Amino acid sequence: MRIALDAMGGDHAPDVVIEGALQTARTTEHQIILVGPEDRVRVATPPPNLSLRHASEVVAMGEHPTAALREKKDSSIAVGIDLVQSGDADAFVSAGNTGAVMATATLALGRLPGVDRPALAIPFPTDRGVSLLLDVGANADAKPAYLVQFAQMGVAYARAVFGIPQPRVALLNIGEEAGKGSQLAKEAFDLLSTSGVDFAGNVEGKDLAKGLADVIVTDGFTGNVVIKVAEGVSEHFTSAIREAVMSRWHYRLAGAILSPALRAMARRMDYSEFGGAPLLGVRGVVIIAHGRSDARAISNAVLAAARAAEHPLSLD
Amino acid sequence: MRIALDAMGGDHAPDVVIEGALQTARTTEHQIILVGPEDRVRVATPPPNLSLRHASEVVAMGEHPTAALREKKDSSIAVGIDLVQSGDADAFVSAGNTGAVMATATLALGRLPGVDRPALAIPFPTDRGVSLLLDVGANADAKPAYLVQFAQMGVAYARAVFGIPQPRVALLNIGEEAGKGSQLAKEAFDLLSTSGVDFAGNVEGKDLAKGLADVIVTDGFTGNVVIKVAEGVSEHFTSAIREAVMSRWHYRLAGAILSPALRAMARRMDYSEFGGAPLLGVRGVVIIAHGRSDARAISNAVLAAARAAEHPLSLD
Repeated sequence: MRIALDAMGGDHAPDVVIEGALQTARTTEHQIILVGPEDRVRVATPPPNLSLRHASEVVAMGEHPTAALREKKDSSIAVGIDLVQSGDADAFVSAGNTGAVMATATLALGRLPGVDRPALAIPFPTDRGVSLLLDVGANADAKPAYLVQFAQMGVAYARAVFGIPQPRVALLNIGEEAGKGSQLAKEAFDLLSTSGVDFAGNVEGKDLAKGLADVIVTDGFTGNVVIKVAEGVSEHFTSAIREAVMSRWHYRLAGAILSPALRAMARRMDYSEFGGAPLLGVRGVVIIAHGRSDARAISNAVLAAARAAEHPLSLD
Repeated sequence: MRIALDAMGGDHAPDVVIEGALQTARTTEHQIILVGPEDRVRVATPPPNLSLRHASEVVAMGEHPTAALREKKDSSIAVGIDLVQSGDADAFVSAGNTGAVMATATLALGRLPGVDRPALAIPFPTDRGVSLLLDVGANADAKPAYLVQFAQMGVAYARAVFGIPQPRVALLNIGEEAGKGSQLAKEAFDLLSTSGVDFAGNVEGKDLAKGLADVIVTDGFTGNVVIKVAEGVSEHFTSAIREAVMSRWHYRLAGAILSPALRAMARRMDYSEFGGAPLLGVRGVVIIAHGRSDARAISNAVLAAARAAEHPLSLD
């Protein structure tokens, strides 16, 4: 597969992106196309399956998405997505400005037949493996029918990329029983029940990490709040542990003994293991990696993009 | 103050409730009225400010709220709320079935003037103290105007119970800037800006625990998902730490040394410190404590109820 990779995306770009590209190129047969300004993206002795495509502009992380779309026609994001649109690449990966990638991809690639709204999906670790949560912010408002499309797109992706033969779908809701929730959730529940997806019913926020379903659908407002609350609570916990450990010398000693175990735990709960967040429903494979991605996370996102490109997604 | 306390509410009722009632009665001058079946709620030598009011029925934790409301007219919840309605108690506290308490209170007490929908508010610990999040599930759907009322009710409660002279209000949203979010969030932002409350703008899910505002408003669907995700992530973290610590003998040793620090951390992040969740907007003080409350959490909820009853809430 030929993967266009935004060399300028992410908090540690271009260095970690180049490192991730090198790792992937050396260990796989995929063609990696690094996209960015040629004076800033340099690789001393690139392997034959790593190339560079020049793009003169860079979209900053905090930049307004539609302004970037309008004003930076030659950004690494715009050029990378153009490669997918023209058929010169099979997928695009970026750890950059999420809003700009979504807006550019939706405009340049268009939507798949049967898709009213593309959705951003986040793979997250569970007690049993991984689940895919969508939408986590492509659209702030949703209609019940969109949630059914999200379910179908999520199922196709979970099958292709996670290798789950028959992914189960659940609806994020504020109660387990049918008939619970907002008007949107109630109507989506009814539609999902007869949609043909393997529908497991409602799942509550506290059970997200239990792995009760492979695909969990919600509107983009709720989904975005969920991932940010989960991130906030995790950080709060991590810093509280650090503070507790540093407060006495014998705690520091015990903390030092425990640190490999705590690091292993943090790694198991690390989203970057699962290859980035796909933007589903556009005509082409687009994966958004976390802004804080290290080289390994970039490499995992490229591998997920390659798997997704091997199994083109369609709603059926 | 005279506080009616549901003796049969919570996972450890009636024992921990009775213990909490005794603690509060012995250390304050409040009149505590334990409500429950007289054959199950017994106190050997009650202090003079602790009394019992018989109620023959009990609403189970998992019971359907409206069915309980309809069929159990003499439940400890119904009788306790009747005491508030008749003026024989200044407040009602329960660690029981949240839905049943909300439904019964709303029906029996009615709404305050100017309130379209009562809201359930959760006090949660932040880096700077405590914030109040509402609505966390009294209503699954909201209109922009409701969120302004939530803000006003939250401000009045934070002033009365937390003693914050001029509480600041934020709107839970999926971006910090104005103009972000769902249709509901955008319209609520505009209304809040001109509502007269001290409005700090949007706050994102990852910043909830930073204490950027004293009162954070959202619709009941999003709010309920938020508290359940936070609870789920916390439990996931706690069990992951326990698992990591138990995996090797020298980790177990280090864990034993660290356990006072970890327990202190858990206590600092413990919601029960902050006195339960008030149901705001009904004509009377109603506080719902966590189902897993211990005696101290019950006592804290009774004290919060007494403070709230001293400063009757009105929208102004």
